[in-house]
Amino acid sequence: MQAFVKATRGPGGEIRTVPDPSPGEGEVLVAVRASSVCGTDIHLWQWNAWAQSRVRRVPFILGHELSGEVVRLGPGVKSLAVGDHVSAETHIADGTCVQCRTGRMHICAHVEVLGVDRDGVFAEYVVLPEMNAWKNDPALDPTLASIQEPLGNAVHSLLPEGAPADLAGASVLVTGCGPIGLLAIVVARLLGARRVYATEVNPLRSDLARRMGADRVFHPVEEGAGVLRTIREETDGHGVDVAVEMSGHPASLRLAFDALTPGGRVSLLGLYDSDASLNFDDAIIFRAARVYGIFGRRMFATWYQVRGLLAREELRSKMAEIITHRVPIRELPRAMELVASQQAAKVSLEAKW
Amino acid sequence: MQAFVKATRGPGGEIRTVPDPSPGEGEVLVAVRASSVCGTDIHLWQWNAWAQSRVRRVPFILGHELSGEVVRLGPGVKSLAVGDHVSAETHIADGTCVQCRTGRMHICAHVEVLGVDRDGVFAEYVVLPEMNAWKNDPALDPTLASIQEPLGNAVHSLLPEGAPADLAGASVLVTGCGPIGLLAIVVARLLGARRVYATEVNPLRSDLARRMGADRVFHPVEEGAGVLRTIREETDGHGVDVAVEMSGHPASLRLAFDALTPGGRVSLLGLYDSDASLNFDDAIIFRAARVYGIFGRRMFATWYQVRGLLAREELRSKMAEIITHRVPIRELPRAMELVASQQAAKVSLEAKW
Amino acid sequence: MQAFVKATRGPGGEIRTVPDPSPGEGEVLVAVRASSVCGTDIHLWQWNAWAQSRVRRVPFILGHELSGEVVRLGPGVKSLAVGDHVSAETHIADGTCVQCRTGRMHICAHVEVLGVDRDGVFAEYVVLPEMNAWKNDPALDPTLASIQEPLGNAVHSLLPEGAPADLAGASVLVTGCGPIGLLAIVVARLLGARRVYATEVNPLRSDLARRMGADRVFHPVEEGAGVLRTIREETDGHGVDVAVEMSGHPASLRLAFDALTPGGRVSLLGLYDSDASLNFDDAIIFRAARVYGIFGRRMFATWYQVRGLLAREELRSKMAEIITHRVPIRELPRAMELVASQQAAKVSLEAKW
Amino acid sequence: MQAFVKATRGPGGEIRTVPDPSPGEGEVLVAVRASSVCGTDIHLWQWNAWAQSRVRRVPFILGHELSGEVVRLGPGVKSLAVGDHVSAETHIADGTCVQCRTGRMHICAHVEVLGVDRDGVFAEYVVLPEMNAWKNDPALDPTLASIQEPLGNAVHSLLPEGAPADLAGASVLVTGCGPIGLLAIVVARLLGARRVYATEVNPLRSDLARRMGADRVFHPVEEGAGVLRTIREETDGHGVDVAVEMSGHPASLRLAFDALTPGGRVSLLGLYDSDASLNFDDAIIFRAARVYGIFGRRMFATWYQVRGLLAREELRSKMAEIITHRVPIRELPRAMELVASQQAAKVSLEAKW
Repeated sequence: MQAFVKATRGPGGEIRTVPDPSPGEGEVLVAVRASSVCGTDIHLWQWNAWAQSRVRRVPFILGHELSGEVVRLGPGVKSLAVGDHVSAETHIADGTCVQCRTGRMHICAHVEVLGVDRDGVFAEYVVLPEMNAWKNDPALDPTLASIQEPLGNAVHSLLPEGAPADLAGASVLVTGCGPIGLLAIVVARLLGARRVYATEVNPLRSDLARRMGADRVFHPVEEGAGVLRTIREETDGHGVDVAVEMSGHPASLRLAFDALTPGGRVSLLGLYDSDASLNFDDAIIFRAARVYGIFGRRMFATWYQVRGLLAREELRSKMAEIITHRVPIRELPRAMELVASQQAAKVSLEAKW
Repeated sequence: MQAFVKATRGPGGEIRTVPDPSPGEGEVLVAVRASSVCGTDIHLWQWNAWAQSRVRRVPFILGHELSGEVVRLGPGVKSLAVGDHVSAETHIADGTCVQCRTGRMHICAHVEVLGVDRDGVFAEYVVLPEMNAWKNDPALDPTLASIQEPLGNAVHSLLPEGAPADLAGASVLVTGCGPIGLLAIVVARLLGARRVYATEVNPLRSDLARRMGADRVFHPVEEGAGVLRTIREETDGHGVDVAVEMSGHPASLRLAFDALTPGGRVSLLGLYDSDASLNFDDAIIFRAARVYGIFGRRMFATWYQVRGLLAREELRSKMAEIITHRVPIRELPRAMELVASQQAAKVSLEAKW
Repeated sequence: MQAFVKATRGPGGEIRTVPDPSPGEGEVLVAVRASSVCGTDIHLWQWNAWAQSRVRRVPFILGHELSGEVVRLGPGVKSLAVGDHVSAETHIADGTCVQCRTGRMHICAHVEVLGVDRDGVFAEYVVLPEMNAWKNDPALDPTLASIQEPLGNAVHSLLPEGAPADLAGASVLVTGCGPIGLLAIVVARLLGARRVYATEVNPLRSDLARRMGADRVFHPVEEGAGVLRTIREETDGHGVDVAVEMSGHPASLRLAFDALTPGGRVSLLGLYDSDASLNFDDAIIFRAARVYGIFGRRMFATWYQVRGLLAREELRSKMAEIITHRVPIRELPRAMELVASQQAAKVSLEAKW
Repeated sequence: MQAFVKATRGPGGEIRTVPDPSPGEGEVLVAVRASSVCGTDIHLWQWNAWAQSRVRRVPFILGHELSGEVVRLGPGVKSLAVGDHVSAETHIADGTCVQCRTGRMHICAHVEVLGVDRDGVFAEYVVLPEMNAWKNDPALDPTLASIQEPLGNAVHSLLPEGAPADLAGASVLVTGCGPIGLLAIVVARLLGARRVYATEVNPLRSDLARRMGADRVFHPVEEGAGVLRTIREETDGHGVDVAVEMSGHPASLRLAFDALTPGGRVSLLGLYDSDASLNFDDAIIFRAARVYGIFGRRMFATWYQVRGLLAREELRSKMAEIITHRVPIRELPRAMELVASQQAAKVSLEAKW
């Protein structure tokens, strides 16, 4: 089959013809119908510091956001059938560690990630463990099905395990409007938020943030202290109830806390790559803030939430707007460039080799 | 001033001219702009068994659902000003018991209820403790402001203290579509429910339930076992994630559990007036169900949620549809009859004496 | 091997020589070192109404409370080794249903129970799925290891999923002092309860309840209304914060709610076998009570809690007191009689054929 | 009366004769029977950077940890009587802001602190709002009653609002063994922790930490990387379930996260005085950690927990060991010196002028 392979420990990737994979015990073979580009793919493509330290072996097939169809079952598979439409939960858990045994598989001590630690989805076929092949409604548009995985990140950020049911009538701040931030805006509205504030520097994304339903989208650099002032004025002086930090910028990290009401909560998903400094006294302690680290999606509580939310047409139509480009997968380098240069929000990859 | 007074321990009530009330220490005087009729008012008017055992003294002024304007401040009032638009939290707490001191004032050991234990709002003026006078957005339509209190019951039923954030993408069953049940349907949708099922025997209310956004409204008697069968079919065999029992019928109590997925939750708000029987093994234990008793509104967590949700136009327009009749308060007996005979959903009372 | 077999659909059971079982894919073979008698075993032995309706097929080997040693691994087993000391989680889940995929395997839609739906532990050997063989500290006394499973029920009752951390300094009522109730008394103390009340009619169990640390043990029939009066007096008029109903008697169900403070919580574990009646208005709604149905143990959150608690010597020494009899397994009928007639608390079975 | 007054914006304080205070509306006059020295008092005494920026006006009477007796009631006081034994909740809330109205008075937007913003307890008498005078069991030793307030900090750190009931059988790390850290060790044991680890550099405090029940007390500087290695070895490679950071040292902040199991939680109480840096990716995000800022005590959920726990003799006897010195209040400068130089754990002040 054809596949985009990270062949050497360096930038880029290449189309190669590789043997068709075969499903082992408890695995299924999936024909890829649509895929999409995630920030992680960009890091691997650019071979940045994170990628250099994270990648354990080459070669491997890139990509993890997927919509496909089951075409063959390995031995022992019970809950899937040939013809099922599936997406991939990209965290492959060992099933035996304390996290796996207590409903927190997404932080399995020995997690493997699709398209990083094992062959991914930028190919004609991919092998998935039965548990990681999430069955979709066959009526769901494959391009939307492929971006369920980042939608799951957005839902997980807004609804981390153990967080209270506090979005009803709440004010929410989303710092950083990449695809996950944009999806967080839509979902916050869908879950009953009163007002949604967002920050973003890129004009394409700011515009999309407004179309997603953000009441205000600030340019955090140009508007400076005005961001906080406006948020305080419009929230009776208190600040937002919930903040989700999607940008990975230390300044946004500080803003997320400064804008937070005493007793509020912050979810952290954006990565900072190195140490960040914070006045913990003011940001967290005197404020009695709660902070949630967000990694992946809850397996599979988040996926059930996502499935239910996707039944709402208003979500599907907003998601479609986030897909700003559709590119044949054979032009993957161009798709990578579109995302890396922030000319695109989400780029959907058509299965055209 | 003019007021509707329950003058004797028996059915009905009468318009009387009574002295204007005066606010004491920490109280405010409120001019009533709009009020509305609640099921509790009907029980008091009809002088049913509950009313006979519950009422401690007569005479008193009836009514508790309110929209009004502060016209005078008693000594020591700090957080309100003359001219403020307010509604009433009708549970008046003592502020010193263990429940009051642990964020659960709504179940204060010595709670007094407006329009039951002290003079209510079916009058030109009413005196409220400062804490119970909830400040409204002055732009909020007074007839909607008055039904914030039952809206609070609906929100509290869907979001009881300590319940997880589990409405996102969930399936919900509302048994009984009186005004609180109808509001629960709207709110469930607003909080991200995937599907909302409802049961109701009255055709006017069934029709309203559909307009509120219920995906299916069953007649629980006529459709019998078909109700459960349909719910199971449409929820992959599992049943609903959340049920709110608003009817006070033992058969609906049993249905709420029968329709529940293992591990789901049920909120109970409808009153049964006497013992009800249940197979606790199947309903609760083997099902690992959680049950929440709902009384009043969380003080004041629910009110903040309600304030935030009322900022959403889709809620306000649905609420307006629930107000099927507007009656001058001097015709209160007619309003009572409309509600008692279920010819109306919510009856709004105009301040026309 | 030798095994106690339920051979026909009727009372009793018999020792039979049956073929040694063999572990399949993902299973292990365990040599039984100690086992113990549970109430469920009594129901099966007596062949009561529940057993008649619940048992799907005969013959099968009885028993599920176990301490043993892994003697052989089936193919694909990764997390266990020959020589590991293990106990059994008796709920065998399918791993694919919505409950299994959301951290609630104990209420799997297709759960099978050891010693009911498949061959149990009253034998020389038993086959367990890898996931259900819980690794013990080898230093743990095998007779205690065997009663970890009911200890898990007690811990689960006190700490149901989603319940708040409310045992610190709390007052707790345990209705019914069979082995699980007795363990709940010890555990409640170990988790910081201020006072523990218990009810029990059997003098042997009442005495044990006091030794477990109950501050007061009431005879619910002889003391009647005095039970409630005393509890109220000693809890500032409010009642207990937490009640766990272990008896399966409808009168105790009502007592558990009557004794509960407004806003308190009740866990239900005891089975009522048929409908029970309750005044839901007073018991649950006006009281804003929360109710948790308890079935099995949380898989495997409860087991980790149990493992941690077993590190505390004060728990192990109390558990040892609950084991009132040690009987060779060849005398199982005598052990059954001891438990059925309530002459024993827990009967440990020695692996002597 | 005699009182220790911070008379000028500079180091130290002085005994002065000041007019006896008089209780206003809703206040009580309390005769001080015992008090104790908190770290905050040291900061004010030493007039450090925090004190210089935090103190709004001088003169004021120092001190906030208190045991006393009500000797006079102001008008309108309902829940207290002359002769009642009381301690002080030192956070005086306005009762009207969103935090106060949602069960989070301890983070009131306009909180005033006793002995900082208004006259404190290092005097013969102090005036308290009725709500802040917490009634004690008259049998409780006054020196213990006075340190209920830091005990409340310890309990709040272990049981923050919304944290799950996860201490049962858990491993806990306490970084920093000042009085609150020492109390956290005792309480963690009392709430069912399996193992308690602590870090401390001061030998007096390390020794006390062991006597409080810590399984291991590390010297974080001398033992360096060995701390983490040992914790990991003894927790199956995973790390602790819960960490409470009491030291205010950035290195301990980092250690608290490094030692944490994926999905674990950290409470932050120690103040860092300036920015601290952290690798948020590794510490919080990839670890899916939850973080709780701890300020004061939950009003009054924590106080009820404290009251209940104080009924346990094992807590009272440990608390007594923490009081290493008893000093007449007229020798307050010596008491301050004992604490500041870490020659003491807790210094109790006798009401001897």
